[in-house]
Amino acid sequence: MAGEADFIAALRGLATHPAARGLADDCAVLRLGSETLVLTHDAMVEGVHWLPGQDPADIAWKLVATNLSDLAAKGAEPLGVLLGYALGDDDSRFLEGLHEVLRVYDVPLLGGDTTGGAGRRTFGLTALGRATCDPVPARSGANVGDSLWLTGPVGAAMLGFEALRDGLGDVDTTAFRRPVPRLAEGRALAPLVSTIMDVSDGLLIDAARLAQASAVTLALDLSLIPVVPALPADRIDDALRWGDDYELLFTLPAGTVPPVAAHCIGRALVQVDHPLLLDGNPPAGTLGYLHD
Amino acid sequence: MAGEADFIAALRGLATHPAARGLADDCAVLRLGSETLVLTHDAMVEGVHWLPGQDPADIAWKLVATNLSDLAAKGAEPLGVLLGYALGDDDSRFLEGLHEVLRVYDVPLLGGDTTGGAGRRTFGLTALGRATCDPVPARSGANVGDSLWLTGPVGAAMLGFEALRDGLGDVDTTAFRRPVPRLAEGRALAPLVSTIMDVSDGLLIDAARLAQASAVTLALDLSLIPVVPALPADRIDDALRWGDDYELLFTLPAGTVPPVAAHCIGRALVQVDHPLLLDGNPPAGTLGYLHD
Repeated sequence: MAGEADFIAALRGLATHPAARGLADDCAVLRLGSETLVLTHDAMVEGVHWLPGQDPADIAWKLVATNLSDLAAKGAEPLGVLLGYALGDDDSRFLEGLHEVLRVYDVPLLGGDTTGGAGRRTFGLTALGRATCDPVPARSGANVGDSLWLTGPVGAAMLGFEALRDGLGDVDTTAFRRPVPRLAEGRALAPLVSTIMDVSDGLLIDAARLAQASAVTLALDLSLIPVVPALPADRIDDALRWGDDYELLFTLPAGTVPPVAAHCIGRALVQVDHPLLLDGNPPAGTLGYLHD
Repeated sequence: MAGEADFIAALRGLATHPAARGLADDCAVLRLGSETLVLTHDAMVEGVHWLPGQDPADIAWKLVATNLSDLAAKGAEPLGVLLGYALGDDDSRFLEGLHEVLRVYDVPLLGGDTTGGAGRRTFGLTALGRATCDPVPARSGANVGDSLWLTGPVGAAMLGFEALRDGLGDVDTTAFRRPVPRLAEGRALAPLVSTIMDVSDGLLIDAARLAQASAVTLALDLSLIPVVPALPADRIDDALRWGDDYELLFTLPAGTVPPVAAHCIGRALVQVDHPLLLDGNPPAGTLGYLHD
């Protein structure tokens, strides 16, 4: 077995229940009686998902916010979270951040597990929500002719990460440290969209995934893609390939105007050889940062 | 903050939603429409929860089985699991064990996350079930006069662990490597019991927790506690303090006969200074192995 791609391919072979959505969506979607559950689990690993010396309160925030972002991409109302926590010497700061993010988004802590032991720490979080519309939108479903939209600019998390890494005290690093799940936007959009997902790994790679799941080609217009004002002109290519901004990417039938602030950045074409065209050509190089 | 006990105490301060049951039960219990969800998350850490060199297929089995055991203790029907997996060089064996345990218990894999990075590995699992009776039993609820029951013997997992650790090839280590969640027993018992839990950390410590949650004292009769035939007479004290057997411990009103095979091992008394009496005296020393 040659790493993550093979492992996930093998997992997909096991995840045959329709609720698993082939492990190709942001969440599992499970009908239960009169309700529909939306479920996601993401983990963060020391040295992989956060920088040495980062404030544990920010890590707690991000762990919860990124999972809530997956719920946002289904238009789900959060019901609660379960935490898998590896104890360390900074537990009280983690608790402060956890308390804050749960309070801000009014999400109950329902349970979890704590573990001891030395070495690299891993935190896991399961978030649980209830669907607010039926059907619950997926990554598949974009139709030829649909317009492609993004709720906000790219680049802020990348610049925040770099400033934190390089110790640039005068740059606002909030976007990287404390991402905002677009819960209200997701709920407003879910009944209208043909597809929706959150941009966690990079606009280009996530758009390519959406295109492949929908069996269309997405044509993006570079001049329409919003970027943060602080982004240097020579960093646009990087910003398109950097994730962690957690904006929502979605398609709507042509002519439909979204009920939330968003930018039209392209449209869905009949599927060609490439899932993605940027100003008419397949983008060069890696499409995104291959976060886990 | 001085470690796990303090951290959990602080977490309890955050987990004020009734569904969290004060983080003092095996599972969270959440009403959703016409159904009641039962939720648990347990993690396993390399070097803490498994021995170096253990077969990853067994680790996968145990990760799923121990979480299903928590559902069993609520009489819940499993709906699915979400996996947090740290990649390694033995992923295909893990997948084989995962496939096997999910097939045996007919539980869908719904989603999860994989992570990379070197160092000590952590696996997390969230299991989700639907309650099959109302109210869903808890650890609190034992009444004075209730009889205390255990579904099967203690000691098998301890002997299995020791044989595996010491390389004793002629001893059956299945009980430690592949515990069996008592799902059918839990479902049959849940509507009848006044309290129920699974024995994961040791009979004495878990009985003490049940006693404290119920505000009674539990009086155990040593001669009534079933042990595996292979257990040497001088290891009974250890077996009472060793977990990992995942039998169900429960209380019933006096005179009620359980609908599954079980042993009456004591009864609930008016609460005295000690939560637990063993042949009339508080048991000496540590009551259980303080697993995470």
